[in-house]
Amino acid sequence: MKAIRLHSYGEKPAVESVPDPAVGAPLDVLVDVGAAGVCRTDLHIIEGQWAQKSGVALPYVIGHENAGTVREVGSAVNNVRPGDKVILHPLVTCGLCRACRSGDDVHCENSTFPGINADGGMAEMLQTNARAVVKLDDGLAPADVAALADAGLTAYHAVRKALPLLYPGAHVVMIGAGGLGHIGLQSLVALTPAEITVVDRSPEALELAAGLGAQHTVTADGGQVDAVLDITGGKGAQVVLDFVGENGTEADGVAMTRNAGSYFVIGYGGAVNVPTIDIISREINVIGNLVGSYNDLEELMTLTAQGKVSLRTRTYPLDGALDALADLDAGRIPGGRAILVP
Amino acid sequence: MKAIRLHSYGEKPAVESVPDPAVGAPLDVLVDVGAAGVCRTDLHIIEGQWAQKSGVALPYVIGHENAGTVREVGSAVNNVRPGDKVILHPLVTCGLCRACRSGDDVHCENSTFPGINADGGMAEMLQTNARAVVKLDDGLAPADVAALADAGLTAYHAVRKALPLLYPGAHVVMIGAGGLGHIGLQSLVALTPAEITVVDRSPEALELAAGLGAQHTVTADGGQVDAVLDITGGKGAQVVLDFVGENGTEADGVAMTRNAGSYFVIGYGGAVNVPTIDIISREINVIGNLVGSYNDLEELMTLTAQGKVSLRTRTYPLDGALDALADLDAGRIPGGRAILVP
Amino acid sequence: MKAIRLHSYGEKPAVESVPDPAVGAPLDVLVDVGAAGVCRTDLHIIEGQWAQKSGVALPYVIGHENAGTVREVGSAVNNVRPGDKVILHPLVTCGLCRACRSGDDVHCENSTFPGINADGGMAEMLQTNARAVVKLDDGLAPADVAALADAGLTAYHAVRKALPLLYPGAHVVMIGAGGLGHIGLQSLVALTPAEITVVDRSPEALELAAGLGAQHTVTADGGQVDAVLDITGGKGAQVVLDFVGENGTEADGVAMTRNAGSYFVIGYGGAVNVPTIDIISREINVIGNLVGSYNDLEELMTLTAQGKVSLRTRTYPLDGALDALADLDAGRIPGGRAILVP
Amino acid sequence: MKAIRLHSYGEKPAVESVPDPAVGAPLDVLVDVGAAGVCRTDLHIIEGQWAQKSGVALPYVIGHENAGTVREVGSAVNNVRPGDKVILHPLVTCGLCRACRSGDDVHCENSTFPGINADGGMAEMLQTNARAVVKLDDGLAPADVAALADAGLTAYHAVRKALPLLYPGAHVVMIGAGGLGHIGLQSLVALTPAEITVVDRSPEALELAAGLGAQHTVTADGGQVDAVLDITGGKGAQVVLDFVGENGTEADGVAMTRNAGSYFVIGYGGAVNVPTIDIISREINVIGNLVGSYNDLEELMTLTAQGKVSLRTRTYPLDGALDALADLDAGRIPGGRAILVP
Repeated sequence: MKAIRLHSYGEKPAVESVPDPAVGAPLDVLVDVGAAGVCRTDLHIIEGQWAQKSGVALPYVIGHENAGTVREVGSAVNNVRPGDKVILHPLVTCGLCRACRSGDDVHCENSTFPGINADGGMAEMLQTNARAVVKLDDGLAPADVAALADAGLTAYHAVRKALPLLYPGAHVVMIGAGGLGHIGLQSLVALTPAEITVVDRSPEALELAAGLGAQHTVTADGGQVDAVLDITGGKGAQVVLDFVGENGTEADGVAMTRNAGSYFVIGYGGAVNVPTIDIISREINVIGNLVGSYNDLEELMTLTAQGKVSLRTRTYPLDGALDALADLDAGRIPGGRAILVP
Repeated sequence: MKAIRLHSYGEKPAVESVPDPAVGAPLDVLVDVGAAGVCRTDLHIIEGQWAQKSGVALPYVIGHENAGTVREVGSAVNNVRPGDKVILHPLVTCGLCRACRSGDDVHCENSTFPGINADGGMAEMLQTNARAVVKLDDGLAPADVAALADAGLTAYHAVRKALPLLYPGAHVVMIGAGGLGHIGLQSLVALTPAEITVVDRSPEALELAAGLGAQHTVTADGGQVDAVLDITGGKGAQVVLDFVGENGTEADGVAMTRNAGSYFVIGYGGAVNVPTIDIISREINVIGNLVGSYNDLEELMTLTAQGKVSLRTRTYPLDGALDALADLDAGRIPGGRAILVP
Repeated sequence: MKAIRLHSYGEKPAVESVPDPAVGAPLDVLVDVGAAGVCRTDLHIIEGQWAQKSGVALPYVIGHENAGTVREVGSAVNNVRPGDKVILHPLVTCGLCRACRSGDDVHCENSTFPGINADGGMAEMLQTNARAVVKLDDGLAPADVAALADAGLTAYHAVRKALPLLYPGAHVVMIGAGGLGHIGLQSLVALTPAEITVVDRSPEALELAAGLGAQHTVTADGGQVDAVLDITGGKGAQVVLDFVGENGTEADGVAMTRNAGSYFVIGYGGAVNVPTIDIISREINVIGNLVGSYNDLEELMTLTAQGKVSLRTRTYPLDGALDALADLDAGRIPGGRAILVP
Repeated sequence: MKAIRLHSYGEKPAVESVPDPAVGAPLDVLVDVGAAGVCRTDLHIIEGQWAQKSGVALPYVIGHENAGTVREVGSAVNNVRPGDKVILHPLVTCGLCRACRSGDDVHCENSTFPGINADGGMAEMLQTNARAVVKLDDGLAPADVAALADAGLTAYHAVRKALPLLYPGAHVVMIGAGGLGHIGLQSLVALTPAEITVVDRSPEALELAAGLGAQHTVTADGGQVDAVLDITGGKGAQVVLDFVGENGTEADGVAMTRNAGSYFVIGYGGAVNVPTIDIISREINVIGNLVGSYNDLEELMTLTAQGKVSLRTRTYPLDGALDALADLDAGRIPGGRAILVP
C-alpha cells in the first residue's frame, strides 16, 4: 500500500509503497483509512522532538488522527464488522490494567500509539484493535471527524475535566483559539453555562470565537492579563484553559486564575514556574491534560453528530502529504486542519 | 492585658501591656486565650516576609493558632456561651459570600486573619467571631490542641483533599515529617488504607513516622527519588504531599509522582518549575493547599478527641514567648510544637 | 400593613391589616414585598396538610416565594442596603451549623421557613435575614422572578444534582412539564448536552416543551413507559426527574430508569414502592430533592438574567389573593404561575 | 470432571461427572477450582427464585464464588499464565461497552455470570476469561478468599460507594452482621473514620462486631430505631447499610437515616416503600448496590493480603456440597461461610 513514512529525523518523510498491514492478534482490527489528520505534532516528530520519548524505530508510518472503514477483524472482535465506518481512538490499549478498567485508557500500562510509536494512519490501511474503534453516526464521514481523533479529543477532555468547576456565573478563560481551542470552545458552549473569554493574538481567531459563542474576546497584545481581570471583577477566572503552553502564556494563565481556581495546561513548549508560596497562599491548581478516553471520544462524536462541534478542514490527497505538512508549517491553514484523504 | 506585640520588622516583639479587646459587632466572640501555638510563620512575620502580603499596621499582636475559653459574646451569637472551651478557626469569616456558603471559609471575600493581619492570640484575650469557634470535647484542653488550629489544620486539609485518590493499594508519599507532616501522617493513617512512604532527612523523624504507621521510610540523602520509585514499582505514587516546598523537594515531588497523579504543595519557600510537555505528557497535577475549613477543623478535633491525632508540645508561659521563638528558630524543639500558656 | 393571613385550616385566609414586621436581630432584613408567588403548596397549607409538619401557630401570613426591595437592615448586615432589589431564599438560616457551612442551607439545624412556619410574604412587608437575600441583576424585576424562589429553585436544584450523570449521549426523562417541570426543562437545556424526553398528559405542555428544546415528547396515555424504552434503545434513561410524584408516576419513573441509573423524586403525594431485589439487581438509586441552596438560587438568577430561564406568570393585586388561589385550584392558570403584586 | 449440577428446580443438585470445560475463545481462561463459596443465593437458585431472571438452561453447574489456579489460557491472554493463583470476579465481561470502559463491569452489556446463568465453579474446573482473573498475593490461598468473590465483593462495593459521605464524626449504621455484614464491617474499619453502629438480632454477631471495631452495637429487639436515634443525637445516621433488606429492616433503615442521608440496600427479599413527601421533605436517598467491579475486587484482595479483612470459613470436600448447602440452610454455619475444596 501507499504510505507516508519517516526514514530520518530532520528530513522529509517519503511517499512510498510499504507492505500491507494484516490482522495478527484476535482483537486486531484492520481499517481502510478514510482520512488522516495532519497535526503540528507531526512536524515535531519529523524534527525529532519525540525521538527519545517515543523510542520508535525508523522508518515508520506517521499519522495519529485517523478515521475510515473497517476492512477485516480478528477472531475475538465482535463490536465492529467489515464495512463499519469508524473513528480511531489514538491509543491501542489492553483493557486489562487498572487504568483501562477505570476509564482512563490513556494511561494504559500496555498501549501503543500508532503514528507515534508504531505505524500510523497516513497510509491506505492501518492496524488497530477492537478497543480503539468508535462507530460513526450515519450522518458523519471519516473526513469530517478524523482531526477530532487526537487534537479534538484532547481539547474535549480538558473541557470535560473542568465541567464541575463551571457553574452559571463562573468564568472560564481560553488562551489560544486555533485548532484545539476551536474545538474546546465549541465543547464549552455545548456543555457549560459559564461565561467564556477567549484570548488570542489573531483578530480573525477572536472574531470566529465570538461567532461561536464566546461572551468576551481579548487580544493578546500585552494587556491580556489586565483585560481578563477586568472582565472577572478583578479576581480572575475559576478555570483557565491554556491551549498554547509556551511563549508566556504559562505565566499569563496563572495570573488569570482566581484564588482556589485551576489552570489547565493543554498546549506545550514552555514551562510552568510558580513560587510555592503563591501556589499555597492562592491555593491554585495546575492541571495536566492529555488525550481523552474512548468514552470521551464517543461523547465528542455525539456532539459532532448533533452539529454542536464541527471542524474547518482543508483536504489533500494522501500523496500530497508533504504539501499539507509544508502548508501547516508555514501557517497557511489558519484556524483549520489539513486532512489527507487516501 | 499582657500581649506579645510586634513593633518593627526585623526586631524582637515586645511583651507588654495593651488595652483589652472588647465585643464590638453582634457576632463577636471574646476569648480568654488558653494556649497559643508558636509557628515558623511567626518567625517569618517578624523577619518581615509577610509585611506586604498582610498589609498589617504595626504594632500588632501576633499568634494565629489559638484555643481558650469564651469570655463574652455579642448579641447575635447563639452557638457558644461564656465558659465554653473552644479552638479557633484561624480566619474570621463573613458567612455570606459564595466561598463561605460553599464550605470554603479560607477564600472568604471579607475575612480577617488574627495574628496575620489583625491582633492575634499571643495575649491574654483575643477577639474573634461566632463563625470561628469550634467547641472542644470535654476530654480536650486548649493546650492540647492549639497548634492544630493552623499548622495541623493545613496538613489535615491536604490529606482530606487527597482521599479520593487513595484506594487500597495506592501509594502516598509524604515529604517532610516535622510539625505539619506529623499531623498529616496521623491523618493519613486514620483516614486511608493507602501505603504510606515518609521521606525526611532526620532519622529521628523517620523513626517516629514508622512508629505512627508509615509502611516505608526513606532518608533524604540524595537517593530519595530512586528509593520512592523502587517502593512504587518504578511508577511513583498516586499522591505526593510535600510539607517542605523548598530546597529541591519541589523537583523531587514531581519526580515521585506517578503519571496521572497529583503533587500536593503544602510547605513553601521554593518554586515549582516543570516543562509544559511534562505536565501534559504525564498528565500530572500540582495542587495548592492552604488552611482547612471550619468543618475540616471540627473533623480534626473529632480525630483528636478519639486519640487518633495528637501533638508533642513544649509549653512556655506567655511572657516566655521570646524564648519559645528563639528555641524554634534554633531548632531546639525537634518534631514538636511550642505552646504559650498565658 | 395589608396581609393574607390564615386563621383556620380548611377556611379561606383573610385579607386584613396586621402589625408591620420590624428589624429585631442584628442580621435581620426587612423587605418591601414586590411580588409573592402563589403555589400549590399554599392550597395544601390552607387545607391543613402541613399543619403537623410545620407546627405553625395560627393565624399567620402565608406566602413563601418572595422578591422585593430591601427597606431596612439590622446592625450586622453588610451585604445589602435599603433600596436593593432582592429575591429571597425561602429559608432563614443560621450560617453556623455544619449544613450551612457545607452549602446545604436547606438542612440548616436552626432555620425558619417564612410562609410555612413563620409569617410569609403575601403581605406588604416581610422579615428575613442577611443570609437569605440574593441581589437581583439590574435587568430583573421582583415580579419576573418571585416564583423562582421556591418552585423554580427546587427544579433547578434537582437538575444540578443530576448533572454529573448527564454526558453527551445520555438520556434524561422529565415526568411532568407544569410549573416546576417548565423550569427544570429550561435548566436542563441550559446546563446539559443530554437528550431530553418530556412526559406529560397535556398536549399543550408537550408542545411548549418541544419549543423549549426537548428532543422527544411523550403523551402520558398509558403507553409512556414503553415509549421511553423505545426512545432509549430499550434500556431506560440514566436520569428520570419526576416532577409529579403521585398517581403512578412513581412506578413509571422506576420503570423508565436504566440499570445503574437514578430516579429523582421532586413532586410528591404518592409513594415509591420497589422490591429490594429490584433495587439491588438493577442497582438503581432513588434520590430525594428539596429546595435548592442559596448558591443554587444565585445561579438560577444568573441564568434568568441571561435569558436562559423565564417564567410565564399572571399577576394579581395583593387583595386579589383569594382569586389567585381559586384560579390555581381550578386549573385556570395552565402552565403558568400566579403572582401577587402588592 | 466432578461437578455439582442442578437438574430441576426444587430438587437437590447432583454430584456427578460432567465433560471438562475447555478454552474456546482467545480471551478464555481455564481455572482449576481451588475453592468455591457456598452462598445463600445458591439456596435461592435451587428453590427456583432466580429461574426467570437468569434464564439458564438446566442442567448446569452452580457456584459463583470461586478461586483457584490457572490451568490454560487462550491465545490472546497475557495477564495470567498457567500456575497463577487467582480469584475470579464473578462476571465474565466484554471490556468494550461503555460500562466496562467506565470501571462498572457489573453493568457490562455482554456479560455472563458463571454459576448463575452459565456453568459455575462447584466443580474441578471452571471456564472464565482474562478480564475476570485477579492474581492472588503470595500470602493468600484460594480457600482463604473464595467467599470474597461475590458476597464479600458486594459488601466492599457498598462501603466504598458510601466513603465520600463518611467523615470523622459522621455515623454509619450497619443492619445485619452476618456473612456480608462481617466483611462490610471490616471494610468500614479499614477505610473510614466514621462512628460505626451495628444492629443485629444475634448477641454473638454483635459481640463479634464489637471485637472487630464497631463503636456501638444494638440488639434488634424492636427498639433498634430508637437506639440508633439515641446514639446519633436524635438525627439518625448519614449512611445506613442494610445487609438484610427484608423483614422490616427496610422501614427501619429509612427511619435510621438522617435527613439528607443515604440508605444503602444490599440484602434483599422485602420492599422499600416510602411516601414521596418523606423522600422529598427529608431529601433522603435510597442507593442500590450490586456486586463490585474488578478494581473493587483487587482492592479487597489488597486489604485481605494486609490482614485487614478476613473470613471465618468451614471447608467441605466438593462431594460434600449437599451437606454444606444443608448446613447453611439450617443455620449451622453461624457468622461463617462454607467453602467447597475440590
